[in-house]
Amino acid sequence: METIKVGLLGLGTVGTGVARIIKENQEDLFKKTGYHIEIKKVLVKNLNKKRNIELSEDIFTDNPLDVIMDKDIQVLIEVMGGIEETKKHIIDAINQGKHIVTANKDLIAISGQELFELADQKKCDLMYEAAVAGAIPIVRALKESLAADDIVEVMGILNGTTNYILSKMTQEGADFADVLKEAQELGYAEADPTSDVEGYDAARKTAILASIAFSSRVTFDDVNVEGITKISARDIAYAKDLGYVIKLLGVAKRENGQIEVRVNPTFIPNNHPLAAVNGVYNAVFVKGKALGDAMFYGRGAGELPTASAVMGDVVEVLRNIRSNSNGRIGCTCYHDKNIKDINDIVSKSYIRLLAKDEPGVLAGVTRILGENNVSVESIIQRGGRSAGCEDCATGEAEVVLVTHTVRHEQLQKATKEIGKLAQVARVYNIVRVEEGGK
Amino acid sequence: METIKVGLLGLGTVGTGVARIIKENQEDLFKKTGYHIEIKKVLVKNLNKKRNIELSEDIFTDNPLDVIMDKDIQVLIEVMGGIEETKKHIIDAINQGKHIVTANKDLIAISGQELFELADQKKCDLMYEAAVAGAIPIVRALKESLAADDIVEVMGILNGTTNYILSKMTQEGADFADVLKEAQELGYAEADPTSDVEGYDAARKTAILASIAFSSRVTFDDVNVEGITKISARDIAYAKDLGYVIKLLGVAKRENGQIEVRVNPTFIPNNHPLAAVNGVYNAVFVKGKALGDAMFYGRGAGELPTASAVMGDVVEVLRNIRSNSNGRIGCTCYHDKNIKDINDIVSKSYIRLLAKDEPGVLAGVTRILGENNVSVESIIQRGGRSAGCEDCATGEAEVVLVTHTVRHEQLQKATKEIGKLAQVARVYNIVRVEEGGK
Repeated sequence: METIKVGLLGLGTVGTGVARIIKENQEDLFKKTGYHIEIKKVLVKNLNKKRNIELSEDIFTDNPLDVIMDKDIQVLIEVMGGIEETKKHIIDAINQGKHIVTANKDLIAISGQELFELADQKKCDLMYEAAVAGAIPIVRALKESLAADDIVEVMGILNGTTNYILSKMTQEGADFADVLKEAQELGYAEADPTSDVEGYDAARKTAILASIAFSSRVTFDDVNVEGITKISARDIAYAKDLGYVIKLLGVAKRENGQIEVRVNPTFIPNNHPLAAVNGVYNAVFVKGKALGDAMFYGRGAGELPTASAVMGDVVEVLRNIRSNSNGRIGCTCYHDKNIKDINDIVSKSYIRLLAKDEPGVLAGVTRILGENNVSVESIIQRGGRSAGCEDCATGEAEVVLVTHTVRHEQLQKATKEIGKLAQVARVYNIVRVEEGGK
Repeated sequence: METIKVGLLGLGTVGTGVARIIKENQEDLFKKTGYHIEIKKVLVKNLNKKRNIELSEDIFTDNPLDVIMDKDIQVLIEVMGGIEETKKHIIDAINQGKHIVTANKDLIAISGQELFELADQKKCDLMYEAAVAGAIPIVRALKESLAADDIVEVMGILNGTTNYILSKMTQEGADFADVLKEAQELGYAEADPTSDVEGYDAARKTAILASIAFSSRVTFDDVNVEGITKISARDIAYAKDLGYVIKLLGVAKRENGQIEVRVNPTFIPNNHPLAAVNGVYNAVFVKGKALGDAMFYGRGAGELPTASAVMGDVVEVLRNIRSNSNGRIGCTCYHDKNIKDINDIVSKSYIRLLAKDEPGVLAGVTRILGENNVSVESIIQRGGRSAGCEDCATGEAEVVLVTHTVRHEQLQKATKEIGKLAQVARVYNIVRVEEGGK
């Protein structure tokens, strides 16, 4: 029985899941790949920490070189996270001819190109299915199954923490701060939730998906990011009235050779497949010229779901080793990227205002919109506290508008002018609206 | 620029889509595979038929040997359908060393093993993503991305015609016969709809999915099949009242080394991801020990969606040719199959009866259920025509029961006895109930 030796960088949640799958599914993995998998070395921070899995003690090390430089190790599984140091480890390992399987979205979104080029050059596999949307096999779907199609749109719920928060806000009418606190207590949100709630985590995944879908090297810096901290229970209630739910979406679209790539809270229609994706689930909606609409749904995080994706990649690497075809797909980012300026992005938008409840207010607001070529699809005006507007002083009302499609720049200009109207006390929020249900 | 020559068997709907993608995405296909794709020969039935795509006239032939025996052709794309003759063509082509991409579910579900073994032996690729669920990349997901996991359940809406019919019946309260007629007029159902409405088409796809998911050679004959012809508007209305929708599901489960594989109309809870899959869409729900729940959703048929799946396979074959690794995955059906007897299948069930509306009826029914160890979860009794029961004579009522989980054999025995009760005029329908929402 032939054995392939693998090394693990990291034995946290995902690393433990990986070790567990290797242990428990040993026989099937052998039948599917022709190899017995042996974990030869595991890099950990603290050698004395108690582990949730039984592994022979002599495989642990706190020296990365023990793993990276071990000549017997053919496949390096990187589940330690981090950027600069981890990147160095991966480069060293590829230079040793090792194949890499990583779950590190930050690293791929920022330094992907450099790593892929090196892997190509060394005929090494560099796989990262687990970096986007956990267990959902969207990377392989885009890179292989849908490779013949012309993909025009990818939209995803890519962050479980924010989806949990928005789902809870929707179900319970609760406000952001309260639900965030609850999510932190339950362990669904980090003590410092910035990366999740500000959309950075989703932006890294969106950059990776856009890169594959459009065969271009889109990086984190290309993504226009807006988080969910400004979304209130009030916005969610209006969304409901209008037939929408609010989700934090990573959106990547291609039209006329330009790539639009952004993360923002979004109104999506109730009958859109993404609208029913709740809690900690992730989903990626893909539109292709031949494919039409498709959606991939599953767990976006967690020990075993993420480990399942890592191990799917390991199986692929082993099959490549057996057929001597590592590096067979390689980097497919051959298009020059042409990222659309945020000002040129066109979408429908929702606007919520606090204004005087008196004749002429709507006339003033709609006049400004008209002057800026923004046409209005629907409008709701609700007077005072009796309608649930807690901010409303006597004689004030909330005004909610949904526009037809409008360029970002024009909408910004119009809402700025609206904010200066004497009768308008405050512009609370502007949220993009996506269309297209099933 | 290197060229790979391909041959097409068939130029119907899917074949035309394949030719269209090869033509329109030529440049991207080259960048992704390193090869220019040329359609060298196309087998058609009628050389004089007008085509929906412009192709050079000299590539058409009505002699299969012109395609199969052409030494320049490396990849054979089979989109003609049929079983015996087509199988012969594919065997001849593999014997010539050609790689096969097919959309032929009937052939794979019936003769898969023989073909895979031959392809393995000849180091040829034999790919069939398009055979199941059209554009949805579920074959590759199960065979590769989820290969490291222990898959315990696959449930799919795999037939667009029946899903269209059931969706329409649900939305409009219409009866089966009326909606079928409408579907035939719209071209969503064949003039002879047997294969769809009796569940045979779904059963072929279920056999293929079960084979891959459980690494066993499950064939069409192993699948216990029940179609949707007995489902009435009345059943659908009761499903709604009880919080379910009715879908035709292909179900494959593995427990204690036994495989349960069946196609039947099913009550699924409103909050199950499959419940929202309507119209001609398909979806496959997968449960894995590591993965948890996942779902793949998209178009199950149509020229371009199916062609997208075919061409995804062609890209894979070309990448294998480039890295000299054809046949790298091969057949993964290494487990002996152990198909569970239908009598041993355990599920909750819905039963609808027509009975006398008089004291003691329910006592009689529940006594028999109790004697057969069937416990009842919920019960609805609706008296007479005023409650919409058109079959009800004066003094008759409809009785609807949902049982807890029960062995098939016991349920059959109980309902047979119930049917013999003097007060029971008719047992309309018994429908399985699945649980598990999100």
